[in-house]
Amino acid sequence: MAKEPKRIFLTEDEMPTQWYNVRADMKNKPAPMLHPGTHKPLTLEEMTPIFCEELCKQELDNDTRFIDIPEEVQEFYKIFRPSPLIRAYQLEKALGTPAKIYYKFEGNNTSGSHKLNSAAAQVYYAKKQGLTSLTTETGAGQWGTALSMASAFYNIPLTVYMVKVSYEQKPFRKSIIETFGADIVPSPSNTTKVGREINEKFPGTGGSLGCAISEAVEKAVTTDNCRYVLGSVLNQVILHQSIIGEEAKIQMAKVDAYPDIVIGCAGGGSNLGGIMSAFMRDKLTGAANPEIIAVEPASCPSMTRGKFAYDFADTGHVCPLAKMYTLGSEFMPSPSHAGGLRYHGMSPIVSQLYHDGYLKAVAVEQTKVFEAAELFAKTETILPAPESSHAIRGAIDEALKCKETGEAKTILFNLTGTGFFDMTAYQAYNDGTMSDFIPTDEDLEKGFASLPQIEE
Amino acid sequence: MAKEPKRIFLTEDEMPTQWYNVRADMKNKPAPMLHPGTHKPLTLEEMTPIFCEELCKQELDNDTRFIDIPEEVQEFYKIFRPSPLIRAYQLEKALGTPAKIYYKFEGNNTSGSHKLNSAAAQVYYAKKQGLTSLTTETGAGQWGTALSMASAFYNIPLTVYMVKVSYEQKPFRKSIIETFGADIVPSPSNTTKVGREINEKFPGTGGSLGCAISEAVEKAVTTDNCRYVLGSVLNQVILHQSIIGEEAKIQMAKVDAYPDIVIGCAGGGSNLGGIMSAFMRDKLTGAANPEIIAVEPASCPSMTRGKFAYDFADTGHVCPLAKMYTLGSEFMPSPSHAGGLRYHGMSPIVSQLYHDGYLKAVAVEQTKVFEAAELFAKTETILPAPESSHAIRGAIDEALKCKETGEAKTILFNLTGTGFFDMTAYQAYNDGTMSDFIPTDEDLEKGFASLPQIEE
Repeated sequence: MAKEPKRIFLTEDEMPTQWYNVRADMKNKPAPMLHPGTHKPLTLEEMTPIFCEELCKQELDNDTRFIDIPEEVQEFYKIFRPSPLIRAYQLEKALGTPAKIYYKFEGNNTSGSHKLNSAAAQVYYAKKQGLTSLTTETGAGQWGTALSMASAFYNIPLTVYMVKVSYEQKPFRKSIIETFGADIVPSPSNTTKVGREINEKFPGTGGSLGCAISEAVEKAVTTDNCRYVLGSVLNQVILHQSIIGEEAKIQMAKVDAYPDIVIGCAGGGSNLGGIMSAFMRDKLTGAANPEIIAVEPASCPSMTRGKFAYDFADTGHVCPLAKMYTLGSEFMPSPSHAGGLRYHGMSPIVSQLYHDGYLKAVAVEQTKVFEAAELFAKTETILPAPESSHAIRGAIDEALKCKETGEAKTILFNLTGTGFFDMTAYQAYNDGTMSDFIPTDEDLEKGFASLPQIEE
Repeated sequence: MAKEPKRIFLTEDEMPTQWYNVRADMKNKPAPMLHPGTHKPLTLEEMTPIFCEELCKQELDNDTRFIDIPEEVQEFYKIFRPSPLIRAYQLEKALGTPAKIYYKFEGNNTSGSHKLNSAAAQVYYAKKQGLTSLTTETGAGQWGTALSMASAFYNIPLTVYMVKVSYEQKPFRKSIIETFGADIVPSPSNTTKVGREINEKFPGTGGSLGCAISEAVEKAVTTDNCRYVLGSVLNQVILHQSIIGEEAKIQMAKVDAYPDIVIGCAGGGSNLGGIMSAFMRDKLTGAANPEIIAVEPASCPSMTRGKFAYDFADTGHVCPLAKMYTLGSEFMPSPSHAGGLRYHGMSPIVSQLYHDGYLKAVAVEQTKVFEAAELFAKTETILPAPESSHAIRGAIDEALKCKETGEAKTILFNLTGTGFFDMTAYQAYNDGTMSDFIPTDEDLEKGFASLPQIEE
């Protein structure tokens, strides 16, 4: 038998033309978002001043299983999709594992990450609605880069609020976002009311995704014909990212493979949600039973140590509330933590599925993540982003278990980004100056104290 | 008729298994390298203390048309090859040109460039010979990164001498090369005799590829069981890079296309040599007659304003002499010039073909190159390296000519690298602080004064 190829491609004809809406197959639907003032489920009318209309509909749609990808978005996708599925032969060999490891590589575009999958869709719908500007936030910079790319493509002005600590750690993100013609503002800033308040309350703060969201939303609702877009957490984002898993499933079928284990890193949920949805469908319908693993940073452990509760999506409490695993909107991750995955909460879809036992979560320490990243780079010739490297760590740990037991499990993980903008963190790891931070129970209690009291 | 796909892939089975040696079809062979002391053609015995043996044989082989790619190198290639051929639909649309533009994208690996094609081969032969360490130089950092990657893969210690001005402009190159376990030294350094001499002669110099080569060669010949490897200029490098054009030709045939124009950027020749060889074969054998265009920087115009003469390959004059288009080994490009393409000479193969009228050369200014790069990034979602952006500039200029004449020419160019490590230059362009430098005739005369007197 011929050896399976290293990289498994799809042709454009084989590319999925629909996104899969995992909510349609969930017995317990994710809880609805609540209005921050009334604590009542948010209506379409209340959402449309913040988000563009079509996206609000997608956000609220718990029933349609498959949603057509507009032709214009398919055209945009074809610039960088289908993405390759790669067999990690060299990593397997280095580990000496009987496991078969596959990864879906989503880093082959300027944005350097999977975020472009949702950016392409969201900006398209905004353009179609006739909006004249957009705002967003970015943590590590992947989403901001992807959105600036999509905004350049559809020619809509964009303002990006970037978490200050990342802005300072990654100066080149500014250059790239500006190259695509967008404005970039370190957050918390003095350009919004909520930013000024946060700066006053936490002087010298490095910011958080929660702060940046508050600022971007305020800017959107106070600007004519402008809306806010978000790259993670939301149901619509998990929907758009579903294309990752749909493609991966077809690619694996081409080599007669099906994963025993599916692994994604977990920050807000776009990465894990993207790779898992197609396989979660099989789990929910009983067609198959793969193990699904979320890997989160020990420094920001929203699933493994958080609470499943309604919480503010943002630090400034201007956004709707979502029911999710959360550390509390005032939880501030250590600035020593590199890259993204700093969000206090978790996608309501991923949270509900975790709560219902459909996936498991593990937390890993930063230096262990970079150890995995370096091994991966040396063996597979791709330098991974720190966020994605959490998934690599998870995959390596599972493959090492197989080495002990002798099981030849099939492992699939999502490699969503390249680390070219994370060399400061790699240098710290190389120099031995990188530290691990694990919040104490007291740290967590402070975050939990900021949870709102909601009667369900 | 179905629309041609955006990206044209090859399967592993369709991947070429031989490199093409363009010298075999050249009527006028490239002139032999000369010993720097005797000025006599260099023998195999004189070369083997510097380069590894198999590579010396390839360097001297003007006759074998096709050379088998060793199976082990093919396995390494499969980690990142075949590379996609991409139709630049979005760029074509933005330009409003009737031309069809294709590009071969070689940036999908950690090294971020095509340099890995030759690195994989050279380190393999070194390992096979039982060498215990290697040295090299790097300009923009692409070659150094690729070689550190290949050295990690084959587990051979490596020292990289990096042109000081690039080392300072691109601090993250250090991090990535160190991540792969190699040592990196800014050149000219005080670790070699020749480096100390150059520092004395040109205090405060930002260095040049010529200096870095001298240092790396000195280090190799003064270290036991160590050899020097080089990422451009040499015949063997053009040989290994031929895989780019061989793949591109098969890919174009899949959509019934053949280029009217083939474009590569020209620094030392690895980029242009890689894309053009397969098409040059058709030109040399009379099978077809595509136009082949080398695009070089106006700040370092070795073909358009240089002399075709024997010259030192390095500033320290420890290397063999090569007959090539050159600005003289003491020509120092302006430090304001971003990225690579700073070498004073040009591959002897490319030089001879240029001299014999088989290709044309154009020189372009830096700001025009970045203008093209930005348009390309916004339309095609790949942020190109400054070096490759010279080819983009060339392709855009040809496509704009087509717009004027109404001709629907087919243009193929080589996109050899991503610009993720060049954001300092992009930022300068965004800020409007980037300047163009064109050497005066006097500047050139100074370089020419360093040409050796060789009787042919």
